[in-house]
Amino acid sequence: MLEQIDLTKTMEKEAYREEIAQMELTLARMQRACKEQKIPVIIIFEGFDAAGKGLQINKLIHPLDPRGFHVYAMKKETKTEQMYPFLWRFWTKTPEKGRIAIFDTSWYRHVSVDFFEKKLSKEERNLAYQEINTFERTLTDDGAVLIKLFLHISKKDQKKRFEKLLESKETAWRVSREDLERNKNYDGYKSILENMLEQTETEYAPWTIVEATDKKYATAKIYATVIHQLEEALKKRTVQKEEKQTEKQEKKQKLFEASVLSNADLSCSYTKEEYKERLQKLQKKIAVLHSELYRRRIPVVLGFEGWDAGGKGGAIKRLTEFMDPRGYVVNPTAAPTEVEKNHHYLWRFWQNMPKAGHIAIFDRTWYGRVMVERIEGFCTKEEWQRAYREINDMEAHLANSGAIVMKFWMQIDKDEQERRFKERMENPEKQWKITDEDWRNREKWEQYEEAVNEMIIKTSTSYAPWTIVEGNCKYYARIKVLETVVNEIEKRLKKTD
Amino acid sequence: MLEQIDLTKTMEKEAYREEIAQMELTLARMQRACKEQKIPVIIIFEGFDAAGKGLQINKLIHPLDPRGFHVYAMKKETKTEQMYPFLWRFWTKTPEKGRIAIFDTSWYRHVSVDFFEKKLSKEERNLAYQEINTFERTLTDDGAVLIKLFLHISKKDQKKRFEKLLESKETAWRVSREDLERNKNYDGYKSILENMLEQTETEYAPWTIVEATDKKYATAKIYATVIHQLEEALKKRTVQKEEKQTEKQEKKQKLFEASVLSNADLSCSYTKEEYKERLQKLQKKIAVLHSELYRRRIPVVLGFEGWDAGGKGGAIKRLTEFMDPRGYVVNPTAAPTEVEKNHHYLWRFWQNMPKAGHIAIFDRTWYGRVMVERIEGFCTKEEWQRAYREINDMEAHLANSGAIVMKFWMQIDKDEQERRFKERMENPEKQWKITDEDWRNREKWEQYEEAVNEMIIKTSTSYAPWTIVEGNCKYYARIKVLETVVNEIEKRLKKTD
Repeated sequence: MLEQIDLTKTMEKEAYREEIAQMELTLARMQRACKEQKIPVIIIFEGFDAAGKGLQINKLIHPLDPRGFHVYAMKKETKTEQMYPFLWRFWTKTPEKGRIAIFDTSWYRHVSVDFFEKKLSKEERNLAYQEINTFERTLTDDGAVLIKLFLHISKKDQKKRFEKLLESKETAWRVSREDLERNKNYDGYKSILENMLEQTETEYAPWTIVEATDKKYATAKIYATVIHQLEEALKKRTVQKEEKQTEKQEKKQKLFEASVLSNADLSCSYTKEEYKERLQKLQKKIAVLHSELYRRRIPVVLGFEGWDAGGKGGAIKRLTEFMDPRGYVVNPTAAPTEVEKNHHYLWRFWQNMPKAGHIAIFDRTWYGRVMVERIEGFCTKEEWQRAYREINDMEAHLANSGAIVMKFWMQIDKDEQERRFKERMENPEKQWKITDEDWRNREKWEQYEEAVNEMIIKTSTSYAPWTIVEGNCKYYARIKVLETVVNEIEKRLKKTD
Repeated sequence: MLEQIDLTKTMEKEAYREEIAQMELTLARMQRACKEQKIPVIIIFEGFDAAGKGLQINKLIHPLDPRGFHVYAMKKETKTEQMYPFLWRFWTKTPEKGRIAIFDTSWYRHVSVDFFEKKLSKEERNLAYQEINTFERTLTDDGAVLIKLFLHISKKDQKKRFEKLLESKETAWRVSREDLERNKNYDGYKSILENMLEQTETEYAPWTIVEATDKKYATAKIYATVIHQLEEALKKRTVQKEEKQTEKQEKKQKLFEASVLSNADLSCSYTKEEYKERLQKLQKKIAVLHSELYRRRIPVVLGFEGWDAGGKGGAIKRLTEFMDPRGYVVNPTAAPTEVEKNHHYLWRFWQNMPKAGHIAIFDRTWYGRVMVERIEGFCTKEEWQRAYREINDMEAHLANSGAIVMKFWMQIDKDEQERRFKERMENPEKQWKITDEDWRNREKWEQYEEAVNEMIIKTSTSYAPWTIVEGNCKYYARIKVLETVVNEIEKRLKKTD
């Protein structure tokens, strides 16, 4: 869940002031409403050291009525606390109905810092994940709102912040030996955090990743997130009277949505010569790897999604051209048949999952649930929100059984799509490729963009990552797909050598 | 969940005929209704070998329209099936909406038979539990009804059945070497199954244990269970029109409810001399064990529940009399205060959980949620149904952290209670012990009985077992409590030697 995060986000001072002034009023109002509705609220701050948790907590409580919240700074367990189950010190601090408890690091300390310091085994950590999920579910089932914020900064930024703190005597004490140790092993620690986020991302207590490089941006995003989640909770309790306020707020919330797609550099390109040369090399490689996969009985699942005319077909063609046709299947995914509609939406994809040693390529996938079905209202909001978890679970099950699972998003911009649509209409050989529906979908570009951004953040996992393929140049896109597949297979083969 | 099951249950031929004839009609009607409502139904048969799964499936499908169901006999995985994730062969067989899929052994094979044969490690098994729970949740979230039946027979009975099958050539082939192996290691295999039942008991897909010693009883219970669960599902979909039918059916369902309490032999007793002698020995022992627990930092949680005047207080007094008062606390549980009501119902008990090395004794416990709160309507049906899982999760968390967790139910009969109530009223020293509420509760004896039976079955786990204490003779009851505590502590100390 961290791979696709853009840490360069910032916010202008002017915009910040304006946003914050408004949101402070809203937050204060929300606090009162939660008190009235007797909703207990738990906000936890997790993330990299020196990401600014303390500062952000200060900002967050600024507009709140101090009689209604309690900040708990949870440090290393005391000797006494160690004599209890690790969740005990949190259970006893859960807030009364209508009050807010804010945790500066929380029960996640146990599965991050403690695990990094080898205080618990992998098996114990995995058990703790289960216990955490159970704990959070028990609280939220009872009506609590649980807001989980993860403050993310880069290794470089973190180092800079430590150095600055160390410069002055007044702040140097805040940097511990352990902090520096975790900075040195940033990548190792990051993969522990990544695993933690994946294993504890649930529909009842989802994570929000806060890009914390720019403090103003982070504050604004935290404000917006808290407001949004409280509003959702209040909506469930009461019939929302201030419909307009909500819409306005929703627009504000959108400002802070992670935008994966807009980061793609669509100017990437190859000349025809570069393309041909690379293509040949990669295709030869993949043919060899394919038989190696077969020999070692490793199954591969490749999912392709992307804008209409994004170049899925072309990429799949180049990918498979030199593969042994007995060892792979391309599964095109059309609208579900009557029989398929009468099953669980994942059922039809299970039919086509690969045997060990085989490759299954899906041209459009189960992600339809959180794109077209979401946007066209073919399923309920509850259903598509639940689907992120269901899909992650399915892909985890595949990966656990030994499969390589990869997903590609073919990204082009709106102009490029128009160009390709027109080209298709003018070319009699390609006219079949374009329908009225394609033009209709195009009108919903913004809605799709929002859905895709959310989808990629929530379902890009270490065991089944998304790759965004910059697709304005078809040559570039095809090579990137091939390269990514080759790299991933080589990585796996090395591991199982 | 198997410990408290009574395998001696039988059903008279006459009663059987009558019950079955009625239920066959109901089942056929239910099948039609599910088809109409497009509810997919999955029924799985698990349990000990030779418990009669095949026979029972035959009985179950007898009244059904054969066009609407499919029986899958799932044996060992084929070579091809082994090349997929283990859930693949089940995913692909999930039924269409409105159809019934019946599995003769299911995905649980992987975590029972395969695990017994050491085909997977403990860690892999635990991962499989998670995958199974996820799979079942994914299906039921989508509206599927999942009925999980576990057919239970004793080791002796199983052996007898195998012997009978082996007698004749025509049936001998049905007994495999593996079957006999599992019979030989019945207890080891049983504890694997016990763990499986505990880890996969969820509110969305609960287990039903079928006492399968008597085939007629088992058939009738399976019929009643399937009818009951289908009816519940249909109720959710449609406004139930045939209220009367349901009530009648609910009464029928009650016939088959596991009845733990009625099995208690209340004639057990000790003379005063026997009592004194045993008491002295045990109290000496517990004093020694108590300091050993302290030395080894093992926490102990003891919960006491039981009928009013059941003898909780007396038992607790004898238990603690010779313990070091710095090492234990008795927590009486009254009706929750305003502050406590404003927290999660488990919160107030977390406040009093013991530190490592200490003993916490609860006089009345968190089980109030599924007894008084259920019966008096202080919480919703959904809430108390969810509570079994929440309580098991909490006790598992305590046990995982090293605690000994035990629960006692003080059982007396209604006459004995009346005798004690009257005695209390007549004795000025004891009058404070009896209130009008006690008499009011007594009127709800049958409701409590039902709730307690369900509670004990669903929350008696290997890590936190219930002990039913036969309490008509106070001497006997006190000794049994002390003995059970002593045994459990000694068992643990041996393990951690």
